[in-house]
Amino acid sequence: MYELGVVYRNITRADRATADALAAFGSATVHEAMGRVGLMKPYMRPIQQDVQVSGTAVTVLLQPGDNWMMHVAAEQIQPGDLVVATVTADCSDGYFGDLLATSFMARGARGLVIEAGVRDTKVLREMGFPVWSRYVSSKGTIKATPGSVNIPIVCAGAWVNPGDVVVADDDGVVCVPRAIAAKTLEAAAKREANEGAKRDQLAAGVLGLDMYKMREPLAAAGLKYLD
Amino acid sequence: MYELGVVYRNITRADRATADALAAFGSATVHEAMGRVGLMKPYMRPIQQDVQVSGTAVTVLLQPGDNWMMHVAAEQIQPGDLVVATVTADCSDGYFGDLLATSFMARGARGLVIEAGVRDTKVLREMGFPVWSRYVSSKGTIKATPGSVNIPIVCAGAWVNPGDVVVADDDGVVCVPRAIAAKTLEAAAKREANEGAKRDQLAAGVLGLDMYKMREPLAAAGLKYLD
Amino acid sequence: MYELGVVYRNITRADRATADALAAFGSATVHEAMGRVGLMKPYMRPIQQDVQVSGTAVTVLLQPGDNWMMHVAAEQIQPGDLVVATVTADCSDGYFGDLLATSFMARGARGLVIEAGVRDTKVLREMGFPVWSRYVSSKGTIKATPGSVNIPIVCAGAWVNPGDVVVADDDGVVCVPRAIAAKTLEAAAKREANEGAKRDQLAAGVLGLDMYKMREPLAAAGLKYLD
Amino acid sequence: MYELGVVYRNITRADRATADALAAFGSATVHEAMGRVGLMKPYMRPIQQDVQVSGTAVTVLLQPGDNWMMHVAAEQIQPGDLVVATVTADCSDGYFGDLLATSFMARGARGLVIEAGVRDTKVLREMGFPVWSRYVSSKGTIKATPGSVNIPIVCAGAWVNPGDVVVADDDGVVCVPRAIAAKTLEAAAKREANEGAKRDQLAAGVLGLDMYKMREPLAAAGLKYLD
Amino acid sequence: MYELGVVYRNITRADRATADALAAFGSATVHEAMGRVGLMKPYMRPIQQDVQVSGTAVTVLLQPGDNWMMHVAAEQIQPGDLVVATVTADCSDGYFGDLLATSFMARGARGLVIEAGVRDTKVLREMGFPVWSRYVSSKGTIKATPGSVNIPIVCAGAWVNPGDVVVADDDGVVCVPRAIAAKTLEAAAKREANEGAKRDQLAAGVLGLDMYKMREPLAAAGLKYLD
Amino acid sequence: MYELGVVYRNITRADRATADALAAFGSATVHEAMGRVGLMKPYMRPIQQDVQVSGTAVTVLLQPGDNWMMHVAAEQIQPGDLVVATVTADCSDGYFGDLLATSFMARGARGLVIEAGVRDTKVLREMGFPVWSRYVSSKGTIKATPGSVNIPIVCAGAWVNPGDVVVADDDGVVCVPRAIAAKTLEAAAKREANEGAKRDQLAAGVLGLDMYKMREPLAAAGLKYLD
Repeated sequence: MYELGVVYRNITRADRATADALAAFGSATVHEAMGRVGLMKPYMRPIQQDVQVSGTAVTVLLQPGDNWMMHVAAEQIQPGDLVVATVTADCSDGYFGDLLATSFMARGARGLVIEAGVRDTKVLREMGFPVWSRYVSSKGTIKATPGSVNIPIVCAGAWVNPGDVVVADDDGVVCVPRAIAAKTLEAAAKREANEGAKRDQLAAGVLGLDMYKMREPLAAAGLKYLD
Repeated sequence: MYELGVVYRNITRADRATADALAAFGSATVHEAMGRVGLMKPYMRPIQQDVQVSGTAVTVLLQPGDNWMMHVAAEQIQPGDLVVATVTADCSDGYFGDLLATSFMARGARGLVIEAGVRDTKVLREMGFPVWSRYVSSKGTIKATPGSVNIPIVCAGAWVNPGDVVVADDDGVVCVPRAIAAKTLEAAAKREANEGAKRDQLAAGVLGLDMYKMREPLAAAGLKYLD
Repeated sequence: MYELGVVYRNITRADRATADALAAFGSATVHEAMGRVGLMKPYMRPIQQDVQVSGTAVTVLLQPGDNWMMHVAAEQIQPGDLVVATVTADCSDGYFGDLLATSFMARGARGLVIEAGVRDTKVLREMGFPVWSRYVSSKGTIKATPGSVNIPIVCAGAWVNPGDVVVADDDGVVCVPRAIAAKTLEAAAKREANEGAKRDQLAAGVLGLDMYKMREPLAAAGLKYLD
Repeated sequence: MYELGVVYRNITRADRATADALAAFGSATVHEAMGRVGLMKPYMRPIQQDVQVSGTAVTVLLQPGDNWMMHVAAEQIQPGDLVVATVTADCSDGYFGDLLATSFMARGARGLVIEAGVRDTKVLREMGFPVWSRYVSSKGTIKATPGSVNIPIVCAGAWVNPGDVVVADDDGVVCVPRAIAAKTLEAAAKREANEGAKRDQLAAGVLGLDMYKMREPLAAAGLKYLD
Repeated sequence: MYELGVVYRNITRADRATADALAAFGSATVHEAMGRVGLMKPYMRPIQQDVQVSGTAVTVLLQPGDNWMMHVAAEQIQPGDLVVATVTADCSDGYFGDLLATSFMARGARGLVIEAGVRDTKVLREMGFPVWSRYVSSKGTIKATPGSVNIPIVCAGAWVNPGDVVVADDDGVVCVPRAIAAKTLEAAAKREANEGAKRDQLAAGVLGLDMYKMREPLAAAGLKYLD
Repeated sequence: MYELGVVYRNITRADRATADALAAFGSATVHEAMGRVGLMKPYMRPIQQDVQVSGTAVTVLLQPGDNWMMHVAAEQIQPGDLVVATVTADCSDGYFGDLLATSFMARGARGLVIEAGVRDTKVLREMGFPVWSRYVSSKGTIKATPGSVNIPIVCAGAWVNPGDVVVADDDGVVCVPRAIAAKTLEAAAKREANEGAKRDQLAAGVLGLDMYKMREPLAAAGLKYLD
């Protein structure tokens, strides 16, 4: 349940170096490193292509058709943060455009993840401010009802606490709780370390069936080859 | 982020009398009493009509196409509980049918809320076991990968902790955190207390415009009447 | 484009007897009688079953998450009207419940058609107040921004002018412009007049192929029978 | 790929007694008996509640917005058949209503499964003619372009050959190939035979964990109980 | 309600210079300049990126799976027009491809907005003919049933009259009624005039909270800052 | 109905030259050449732009959240093949990423068509391995339950037999049965042969109305021109 009408100014952010380092691994590797959890729903899509970022979460709870809290959130942004916003009900309105992006960038934000709509997408791409959203819509919003900033929120099915690390790329968005960021980074690095060797073998024509020793368990599971 | 492969046996349930009393107010009044938050997304639909229940949450985290944890959850049910289940990814499979419902009823469950599919819906209605789900599907599931029971989960966009109160009816599903259950009950009762008098006035032809004294603020907001 | 912040008090309603008589023919026959146009999109669904109504449209333009104009609309309702409401952006919130329904019924409304969400659906069914909506949702709304009443609106893809006839049943919702209501009633009656005889023939085992003389045109179109 | 413009008059139907007997087991049990395959997608929904039928498939391939082939199909119906129809592209139009249903019933059809829209749903329910469809829509269709009757089709993701057995109920629709209908009936009966005993145990409070001996494999899979 | 089977040859187009000038402001600014109305639903998406156009509307009403009227519309196109097309029912078929685009370009069309599907999207991008559509689909159409050209239509929830100005870009599509095109252009220009100065301030680190003087109204609305 | 747990090693592929030649015509022309059938549903979208390929189908039936069979399929790939995969239930998980793509490319695969999710999309584009999928998702999968390889499958509404030709581009995906591949190639070539001349005429300003001699049939169908 959400606490409404509050802004938490002092949040504990995940370690900067750890948060930054997670970007390189991407959302797929990072969520695997956590045990295949923490992903937002796949309807969250980037407005740009081939961008991969991470940042510490500043969270925003918005009201339907009302982007007032985005301005309140701007003040809470510190360099290296990534803003994560959700609405109390499904809403496709364009909550965010080039002016807010200018402000967010001036504060040092790495990007925006929002379960709602955004607009000015052409300009946002030109500015190099990455956004993941559920919708794209020209529809404007009002400023009438307070939500909250830096409370724990649910965004696209993922639980996000202020200060958590968020990793976003072309495949989706994953949230890494602050408490396990370091452990997750380590696990992601280990996972990736093995990938190069595997890739070389596969490129050389070795089959995953052999590389992963799957033939026996497949037979045990009853798989039959027919001619 | 979800803790995987664990079952918490000792959870603190909301006060029974409070949890039970909330059913009478329904999801709309209860969510208003909390400040218009806590609702699950409206794609959660009942398989029956005109049923209104509440219960203390036993939570279940499931894997895609795998309902193993439903059997694990059954053992954790106490009379007055309502099972709330979600999956680590969107899945429409039928995770729950008449056999599991028989078991859940024998344990005293009030119903099931599941962000996935269910089946045997005709029999479930005949048994009087109420279900709210995202899908209805005959598709069966396997029992291969552990999830968790009684961890905090996100179900259909709502954050549910084990022991919270869940209220479900034809309009949707709302989760009331244990800590504010009593306060919410009080607020809901106060809200409803006024409704009878209002309903009588409206039925007598008094307009909401007058009863709520809206004419002045509407004029101030610029509304114009034209002939 | 919508005119915002206005309420038109004097609208010209379709002839009462004509408007009332159209209910009996249902949305399918009426839309056929107009040349297969005028239907709302099929995502508009009734909250009740087996109810078929018609009424003269009182139109409402709402803002996202804001039902203020529903109260303004109540005052404009005359007996035999049916309220048709839309929102300036997609919104699933519950704009309408039992209190507003009490008020609408007291004013003589025949029902509500709304491209948004409604709540208290169990009570609405008990009250016998029929509703067609896009969503069902417990989510409450605010009263902050004016929309309009009795301006022409687009509802679920159909153009509705105040005073037009709206016919709604289990199959959907159709809008009959006031200017052609009488002509449409006549055409619908003629259409239906033929149906009884056709039904008798089909029930007796006569094939549509023969009754409609389709065998020749089918052969001309190249249809081949194979054994 | 579909053969267009043809009607196959002589199809081999599954054995009548077998086809009829499968209805009692329902779509969930029957699809399990086949190895959890053969289901149509869960967006196929009944227009009525608590009806469970089976029949031998007469298949229909329709063109977008064109129901000509439904009349052609009527002639090919024999008592005990169930018509299964699909369109060459997604289309929500109302392809089927009370007149066609009268004709289909006169021919002995058990029901209709259609990946498109239907109308006159209130009358269809009153007539007792069961329908499973993707959409409900008042929208009428034309009769301009031939499709086919009794060719193999894909309906809602399932491959249906003329003469196959189709089982439909509140949970969905499953297609049983003619060649394995007898074997599937046997497997379904065996499956169901065990269910009564299981249900009794579960109703008596025995846990699935114990009845299915799941405790050991769960522990082996790493599940941990915490207090 | 739509008038079927007619082509209006003489339509009054919005002033050319005004219509052309609106392109530069984009759909978001233009819809704000009209009071936040006139937008098509956000499911209308461009097949290309970073293109922003405007034009005077030639409207087309199509039948399901039938693109005959697109050829009729071509003759009505004048340089500076933008074709806006809708279908009498939802249809994802590919109504438009490179041949029609060649014809439309030869007539001077600025682009196409269609609530249906299009195909040959790669070639359309290469040709530089911009398209906004609901679907992309290879599915071909027939030419059997007349619709209409240059009648008022509803396209993706927006009311479009022939001769209105349509502005389309990456964020969506907005329709400006001919009668208010000049006034809207003026309002859009005024709106944009302020944006440069605001952008500079925000880029310099000034907060929207201060620039828009939001701190006081936020406090009045009850927003609380916590440490 | 699907045969589960089997891998067919010897499949008869369509003639290589024919299969390769079909790519140049694209999905729209090829499906028209077959009589406007054989298309997958339009929700199948490419992860890259402006790529057009064809190949002989190696088919894969997957289980929900389980990509084990993709590894089994790799071994069955021959140069010129294109892998077509579906799941026994709707599933958005990321079944395929850069490692599997490396393996598929090493085996000579032309691309992947999958009615499920994929990940590592940025890397896949960089590798030049084209993919058409229903979803993009970082979500990983398990390897627990066998499906099948090289059985006939339904993928996104199309029936695909191993060895059939699959043509995919920006507009969609079409499956050409092996038996009619040569005939379809011929028909596609004939269709395209006419297009150049038509395009020239249309570019020169000739109207489709005249080029296709539509004026008379339009008048016969009742179309009226009004001023």
